[in-house]
Amino acid sequence: MVDYIADYLENIRERKVFPNKKPGFLKKQIPDSAPVEGQTWIEIFEDVETIIMPGVTHWQSPQMHAYFPALNSYPSLLGEMLADAIGSLGFTWASSPACTELEMVVMNWLAKMCGLPDHFLHKTSGQTGGGVIQSTASESTLVCLLAGRTKALKHYRDLYPEETNITNKLVAYCSDQAHSSVEKAALIGLVNIKFVESDDQLSMRGEALQEAITNDRKAGLLPFWVCATLGTTGACAFDNMEEVGRVCEKEKLWLHIDAAYAGSALICPEFRTWLKGIEYADSLSFNPSKWLMVNFECTAMWVKDCVALHETFNVDPLYLQHEYSGLAIDFMHWQIPLSKKFRALKLWFVIRNYGIKGLQKHIRHGVSLAQKMEAFIQSDSRFEIPAKRHLGMVVFRLVGENHITEQLWKQLNSRRNIHLVPASIKGKYVIRFTVTSPRTTLEDIIKDWKEIRTVASDVLGPEESRKPRVPLGGTSCQSDLNDMFEYIRH
Amino acid sequence: MVDYIADYLENIRERKVFPNKKPGFLKKQIPDSAPVEGQTWIEIFEDVETIIMPGVTHWQSPQMHAYFPALNSYPSLLGEMLADAIGSLGFTWASSPACTELEMVVMNWLAKMCGLPDHFLHKTSGQTGGGVIQSTASESTLVCLLAGRTKALKHYRDLYPEETNITNKLVAYCSDQAHSSVEKAALIGLVNIKFVESDDQLSMRGEALQEAITNDRKAGLLPFWVCATLGTTGACAFDNMEEVGRVCEKEKLWLHIDAAYAGSALICPEFRTWLKGIEYADSLSFNPSKWLMVNFECTAMWVKDCVALHETFNVDPLYLQHEYSGLAIDFMHWQIPLSKKFRALKLWFVIRNYGIKGLQKHIRHGVSLAQKMEAFIQSDSRFEIPAKRHLGMVVFRLVGENHITEQLWKQLNSRRNIHLVPASIKGKYVIRFTVTSPRTTLEDIIKDWKEIRTVASDVLGPEESRKPRVPLGGTSCQSDLNDMFEYIRH
Repeated sequence: MVDYIADYLENIRERKVFPNKKPGFLKKQIPDSAPVEGQTWIEIFEDVETIIMPGVTHWQSPQMHAYFPALNSYPSLLGEMLADAIGSLGFTWASSPACTELEMVVMNWLAKMCGLPDHFLHKTSGQTGGGVIQSTASESTLVCLLAGRTKALKHYRDLYPEETNITNKLVAYCSDQAHSSVEKAALIGLVNIKFVESDDQLSMRGEALQEAITNDRKAGLLPFWVCATLGTTGACAFDNMEEVGRVCEKEKLWLHIDAAYAGSALICPEFRTWLKGIEYADSLSFNPSKWLMVNFECTAMWVKDCVALHETFNVDPLYLQHEYSGLAIDFMHWQIPLSKKFRALKLWFVIRNYGIKGLQKHIRHGVSLAQKMEAFIQSDSRFEIPAKRHLGMVVFRLVGENHITEQLWKQLNSRRNIHLVPASIKGKYVIRFTVTSPRTTLEDIIKDWKEIRTVASDVLGPEESRKPRVPLGGTSCQSDLNDMFEYIRH
Repeated sequence: MVDYIADYLENIRERKVFPNKKPGFLKKQIPDSAPVEGQTWIEIFEDVETIIMPGVTHWQSPQMHAYFPALNSYPSLLGEMLADAIGSLGFTWASSPACTELEMVVMNWLAKMCGLPDHFLHKTSGQTGGGVIQSTASESTLVCLLAGRTKALKHYRDLYPEETNITNKLVAYCSDQAHSSVEKAALIGLVNIKFVESDDQLSMRGEALQEAITNDRKAGLLPFWVCATLGTTGACAFDNMEEVGRVCEKEKLWLHIDAAYAGSALICPEFRTWLKGIEYADSLSFNPSKWLMVNFECTAMWVKDCVALHETFNVDPLYLQHEYSGLAIDFMHWQIPLSKKFRALKLWFVIRNYGIKGLQKHIRHGVSLAQKMEAFIQSDSRFEIPAKRHLGMVVFRLVGENHITEQLWKQLNSRRNIHLVPASIKGKYVIRFTVTSPRTTLEDIIKDWKEIRTVASDVLGPEESRKPRVPLGGTSCQSDLNDMFEYIRH
């Protein structure tokens, strides 16, 4: 299996990134019922290549440009192997002391690597803040919404003791660019959600948020929670955390920062301008399982004050109590599931094996390749980039009606040389291009661009005489690039 | 790493099952901040044995008798390795077709292996029921509570269109023996929860449930959901699913079955008497990650009708739509997190490698060893077994005041030769003894019993003259044992 995995990853560019299958393809190849007698490993293993692999979307491929990255790496795979072999469940400190304590140490490491404020660190005494590894960013959003709800219910019940219907009146806010998981969290949390219109940079601004809150208060509703996004899914846009934070402070709302994708880039100081206003945040999460090559599941989440988490999740039966109950952290009170895997191992292995410098290099490599793609697209007047490129993602479309870009997307995906997903940005149909794999090279990007141009010509008819709008390399983001090189040199 | 893991698992009985550490032990051994330069694998790997292992609770140890099992096995570890190497995220069918389809096939296998009704199977046409792999049993309970809440809100809003306060009046029910995660689900779901008093067999009965519901309806509350447990955490008791199911049918309540531990035993036909009444269940979940040697996380959950799940979780942005949206299953609508790992691989590998017979043998081995321990305890008049043993778990205490048993438990754990957790059963402090590891032998059980007797003598003073109450081997559960042998012979 180790050899198979190494071969798979090292030669992944030989496989078509997207499978050529229709729903129902697999069940025709597998018996309807489980075998009564055990089968040999050889028999089982043979089916991996013949039955499974033809149906896999290869997320580790250099040609994977859909969604956001979901990477692995050798130290991460080794960490997960060890975690699964130990197989301990870390719900309480005692259920696996090393699991809990390593998670605390490594979450402190990561907070410092990202330049997060001191109040997000686990401390020896006066513990209120700290980090925890959650399964997914969706779950983190939900956890923080629930914690905010707990605080709000208490607050508003004290304020309006006669009111019996507080829950129905609670309102959460996010930008119209926020990830669907924020809406899902509100559905689960049974609270209202309002989508604040983003500005022309796709950013949620303080004024628009304030207006929404003021209107809702006038209508008798009870605002309680805001999710600001650093790096939206549609176009990697950034909410204005400082403006939003000031509103939250004034209005006494819980501010959660969803940095699922962009958070990994915070390990590079040049991207920390986006952290302006972080002092207002009650919680923040991002996915090392996206861009930091720590395999899924691994979402880093920090809170300023864990009391609200405890009050939300604390159920403490005798069979979970131990000698140090109340003296050590029991992570079961910080999360939805009771149990957790020894996930800190893979994060620890990855950070140590790459070092901060190695991880920064990986992030900067991805950004520079996205800048290249941006430059290519800008050089072809048939295309447009309707939203500023940030980090490792660029969105583009064909000039004209939405259906032309939709057709481009469909044809690109059906050829299976590269894999992409579309998004809708203020009514414009766009194709998202994310640089994911650490194996992606400049040659790949050149090839990908050739593929996109070829298919565009199919869609549009013979290519019109090319009118480059800016010379190749002279991107609108040259200053970002310079900043980056500045840091690499140091 | 592969060698290290094999050595760890094969020689695990040489390690003390529980670590001798105090909170804060780990951070003294690890730098406060992440390394700037990458470290070699050798450097990192050395720390596993010196820093990590001394702080691990060894869940795979034959001397692990705490909580419930959380096992792994070689085919499972290989499945997880492959899943992590592929690193695909299965939120939609298109995001990894093989991931979604294998999950459907294997969940059908498992349903049939357990004798579950046909309406829990994925079908080609007229799809309403089916199985899904969740992270944990806690999460499954929450998912099913939320689905029940969605149906109830619709139902009661139609019934009482004037009522603005339906949510606050919803009531969920479970036995006073139910796992703490049921209470946690109600806290998250923002609904009331009532604990129905179990009978002297620690079983929730129809009559007691009906009485609670009737009283609540009289008080203007709105019952909507019941969780019945097969194999409670405290004493592996079983709610009377048939009686409870009839009440749920009459009262139109969602019935969820939490079989987290005991569910694995359903693969042995002799334990399917507990399935009586399963036709009333809307959902059922159990953990192959407990007793079936599929490593954490792997919770099997089935629903009769997935529409309520869809209505609870369905948020469908453009970036998640694909060519077969609506035609294929998108598991993101069946769960709280958006993304999921290729978890079906490990379940598939384990079932195939052991075969149904091999897995049955493993379950029966665990049960027979628990019966042995039961017989040992019954042979010593200083002990009592205050609740009937079921499956691989026996609870015991010292005759007398609670504090004597508490002292026994503390001393046993501090010696670290075996690891146990206590529980409270109708006010009685008991020690739970669960047979977990497939590596546990009769010799281990004999040794464990010797350890328990030795410490009991420490606690009670010199052992009084022994008065065996039943001859060794003549357990109260001889009929279970006979049934079992009957099946093994076939």
